[in-house]
Amino acid sequence: MAISLSLSELARRIDGSTICGEAGSVFSGMAALDTAGPEDISFLGNEKYLPQFLSTKAGAVIVPVGYDFKTDGPALISVSNPSLAFATVVRHFAAAASPFIPGIHPSAYVDPSAEVDPAKVCVHPGAIVLAGARIGEGTEIAPNAVIQNDAVVGEDCRIGANSTVRERCVLGDRVIIQPGAVIGSDGYGYEFSDGRHVKIDQVGIVEIHDDVEIGANTTIDRARFGKTIVGEGTKIDNLCQIAHNVIIGKHCLIVSQSGLAGSCKIEDYVTVAAQSGIAGHVIIGEKAILSGRCGATTSLKGGIIYAGKPALPYREENKLQAHVRRLPKLLERVKALEAAAKEKSSTSE
Amino acid sequence: MAISLSLSELARRIDGSTICGEAGSVFSGMAALDTAGPEDISFLGNEKYLPQFLSTKAGAVIVPVGYDFKTDGPALISVSNPSLAFATVVRHFAAAASPFIPGIHPSAYVDPSAEVDPAKVCVHPGAIVLAGARIGEGTEIAPNAVIQNDAVVGEDCRIGANSTVRERCVLGDRVIIQPGAVIGSDGYGYEFSDGRHVKIDQVGIVEIHDDVEIGANTTIDRARFGKTIVGEGTKIDNLCQIAHNVIIGKHCLIVSQSGLAGSCKIEDYVTVAAQSGIAGHVIIGEKAILSGRCGATTSLKGGIIYAGKPALPYREENKLQAHVRRLPKLLERVKALEAAAKEKSSTSE
Amino acid sequence: MAISLSLSELARRIDGSTICGEAGSVFSGMAALDTAGPEDISFLGNEKYLPQFLSTKAGAVIVPVGYDFKTDGPALISVSNPSLAFATVVRHFAAAASPFIPGIHPSAYVDPSAEVDPAKVCVHPGAIVLAGARIGEGTEIAPNAVIQNDAVVGEDCRIGANSTVRERCVLGDRVIIQPGAVIGSDGYGYEFSDGRHVKIDQVGIVEIHDDVEIGANTTIDRARFGKTIVGEGTKIDNLCQIAHNVIIGKHCLIVSQSGLAGSCKIEDYVTVAAQSGIAGHVIIGEKAILSGRCGATTSLKGGIIYAGKPALPYREENKLQAHVRRLPKLLERVKALEAAAKEKSSTSE
Repeated sequence: MAISLSLSELARRIDGSTICGEAGSVFSGMAALDTAGPEDISFLGNEKYLPQFLSTKAGAVIVPVGYDFKTDGPALISVSNPSLAFATVVRHFAAAASPFIPGIHPSAYVDPSAEVDPAKVCVHPGAIVLAGARIGEGTEIAPNAVIQNDAVVGEDCRIGANSTVRERCVLGDRVIIQPGAVIGSDGYGYEFSDGRHVKIDQVGIVEIHDDVEIGANTTIDRARFGKTIVGEGTKIDNLCQIAHNVIIGKHCLIVSQSGLAGSCKIEDYVTVAAQSGIAGHVIIGEKAILSGRCGATTSLKGGIIYAGKPALPYREENKLQAHVRRLPKLLERVKALEAAAKEKSSTSE
Repeated sequence: MAISLSLSELARRIDGSTICGEAGSVFSGMAALDTAGPEDISFLGNEKYLPQFLSTKAGAVIVPVGYDFKTDGPALISVSNPSLAFATVVRHFAAAASPFIPGIHPSAYVDPSAEVDPAKVCVHPGAIVLAGARIGEGTEIAPNAVIQNDAVVGEDCRIGANSTVRERCVLGDRVIIQPGAVIGSDGYGYEFSDGRHVKIDQVGIVEIHDDVEIGANTTIDRARFGKTIVGEGTKIDNLCQIAHNVIIGKHCLIVSQSGLAGSCKIEDYVTVAAQSGIAGHVIIGEKAILSGRCGATTSLKGGIIYAGKPALPYREENKLQAHVRRLPKLLERVKALEAAAKEKSSTSE
Repeated sequence: MAISLSLSELARRIDGSTICGEAGSVFSGMAALDTAGPEDISFLGNEKYLPQFLSTKAGAVIVPVGYDFKTDGPALISVSNPSLAFATVVRHFAAAASPFIPGIHPSAYVDPSAEVDPAKVCVHPGAIVLAGARIGEGTEIAPNAVIQNDAVVGEDCRIGANSTVRERCVLGDRVIIQPGAVIGSDGYGYEFSDGRHVKIDQVGIVEIHDDVEIGANTTIDRARFGKTIVGEGTKIDNLCQIAHNVIIGKHCLIVSQSGLAGSCKIEDYVTVAAQSGIAGHVIIGEKAILSGRCGATTSLKGGIIYAGKPALPYREENKLQAHVRRLPKLLERVKALEAAAKEKSSTSE
């Protein structure tokens, strides 16, 4: 983490207002409030960290607009979203720490027919790029990653260690693949014939659009024909399963260990929380939110928060679960009614 | 996709009847009805695709027996199962597109004591075959896959990129391992002693029989002793967990993200739908079907469809869930009874 | 499995009492009771294996204290925990079978700036160790594993094939990483801005303490800042997801396919059974046990067994589920009350 930032340069980069501090002060790193030192930039992203803010030893702190008091301590810069602004700072130092250095490592293997410009692409040790593959400028292929025949990887991508992009799959620009992810494995398709499951070849591809991130050890199956698609800006967490012919829209969040079955369609801005499942062929409407471990067995309208399996609107599911928790009391009430009825009937006899 | 097919050759290969079309017409590819062109073979597998069929530009379409009308458009061949027949077509073109070319790539490492015939086996760049391993004829080891010491891989297998077959595991013929899968990881076994979990060495193996397919990033643990077994023709989807000493029968389907705990036994022709779990040491009877996210905590009889956790026969579970959804109404009915009883008691006072 | 054990040496190593058998008898392997031969050591760990014990052909059997009868058959040695004692035997033979042989394989790549002593570390074919990484004595890096920049791996570790340890992560001594696991993938963190999810760089690390084991294809995300921590002696099974900034205590068991969301804290000796989920930022108290597929959405007190989602004490959840299963009967009782009330009201009219 080498390249330092002055306070004025910091304010300029995050489009913030300097509340206090010397414009020429220089900072060489970043850290959380409680671990930062005088050389570090930190931030106050949430009121609950106020105690740490008040005792921080950071050299500069990015604060939300409204904290316009001066302190004896750190320099202060205000912005509307300190967390987002801090991400810019982090990116500055992180990029300085691991600069992009183009070149093909001698222990990597790049097929002569692959299009990989060694002056503009970084292929790390042990990485493999097979025949006909094309890698865009500014892209980094981490150690032991595998790009198979005729796959296309866009510009400024980061392909993680030990990940696999299978033949003919297509990745857009600025795509991030975490380690161990598999793009383009065969879809799970068989015909039952003569007492055996006969494999149906899966000859489609996976197409991943710009600015997508795919989590570690997540798997995305290629289409039987055509394409499995992950739309622009969508972020998929670790250990998710995306089956063949799934279509995911733009800017969705698919959280860890969720599974999307074959040919389901997820519209734009959908959130699927952790450990959820979506059945084959259903459609999840725009901006729908599936809470944790939701099970969508039918198509769901957009703009609504869902819970449970089968998925119901969140409040409805919560009410049902409250009813279940009160079942012992309901039973008591029924018993009381029975006792009263019995007493009455014995009285009336 | 180079090797073309004539209509008559197509009919012969899929054992179909030509309804219309020139025997000598030649086709060079295959596609879905809505994207096919005059050079492509397509198929009508399901009535819902009838609109696409009526407007297709495909050169030839495989149709189910009974569609015996002629069209101005594509040549037609009828068979009993068009989807299965089309799989044959796909396989023909796919095989032509990525032919098996034997040889050991210079960037691969094959231990001198491993039995790998370079004239009959294909070891791709970066793949590793350790001492004592044996690889059968016609088998392909994808880039950066690892076959550890004394493992045995049968004939005509496809071992995916970045997958691992650990020491002494045994794979039959025509086994397909998707990328990133792990065969033979240590079982999860510890003894608790003096406040610590002490590892129990796992010295058994995994044995995978003929015609099995293992999904991407699925994990199959080796037995403590003896064998974890996956029976002939069974197909396991992505991200499944098969624990130590599990025995899976023949021709089962284990769908994505399901987990089978230690020493459970799955008999032949069982289907385990996605995200299901099976407890340790239980037995699932032949042809049982566990629906999605089922949790089998005890042994289950064969031939029945199950749902829920704990698993119940599907209809029973569905009824219970319907009862739960009607709990608000049941509460209203109890309230009405209480009100009536109170009124009566106040009347009678 | 070469190095044999005499009966007296066996008794000494497992601190057992020889009940019968010749001190000088020699055994060359180990096996389960039903498959062992005269050259093998076996053990009786559980009463249910008594029939196998009575008919075993093993040369020697480790039995629990109290089985102090003599047999015609195998030599007998008694200990308090035969299963644990047998683990020692297994380790003896297993170590003999795959001895640690230091050296860096020519097909591996170790950056010149990495600290790897070829006389004391074993780097297998295709493994990659990047700049600034440090590998402790007695550690083995399996084929195609990747250790990224400045990562630190302690002594006597076993890093599995195709696994990844990302930059700057720190592993203690005797850590075992099963194949395909990913240590240090980016946490799942984004800020929503202008209709897009903007990545928040994850600049922290993962710190894994001594004697931890991580299962195959499990993923552990690096912290946003600071550390994701796995405490001493904790054992994590296959396909688990540990999110950024999670803190796991000592000697925990996290069973397969469980997911721990961001910043949750698991205290010492917690057990999380298979397919469970723990929400972000919650705390699970010491010695709590979450049973299979438990969902902890709030913090939970220690020392209690939990079940269900949301997690309830096990007995409470079981009672609720029993109530649910009796719902059809409850409905019948309400119907009977309604019929009686109706009859009474019509009688009284």
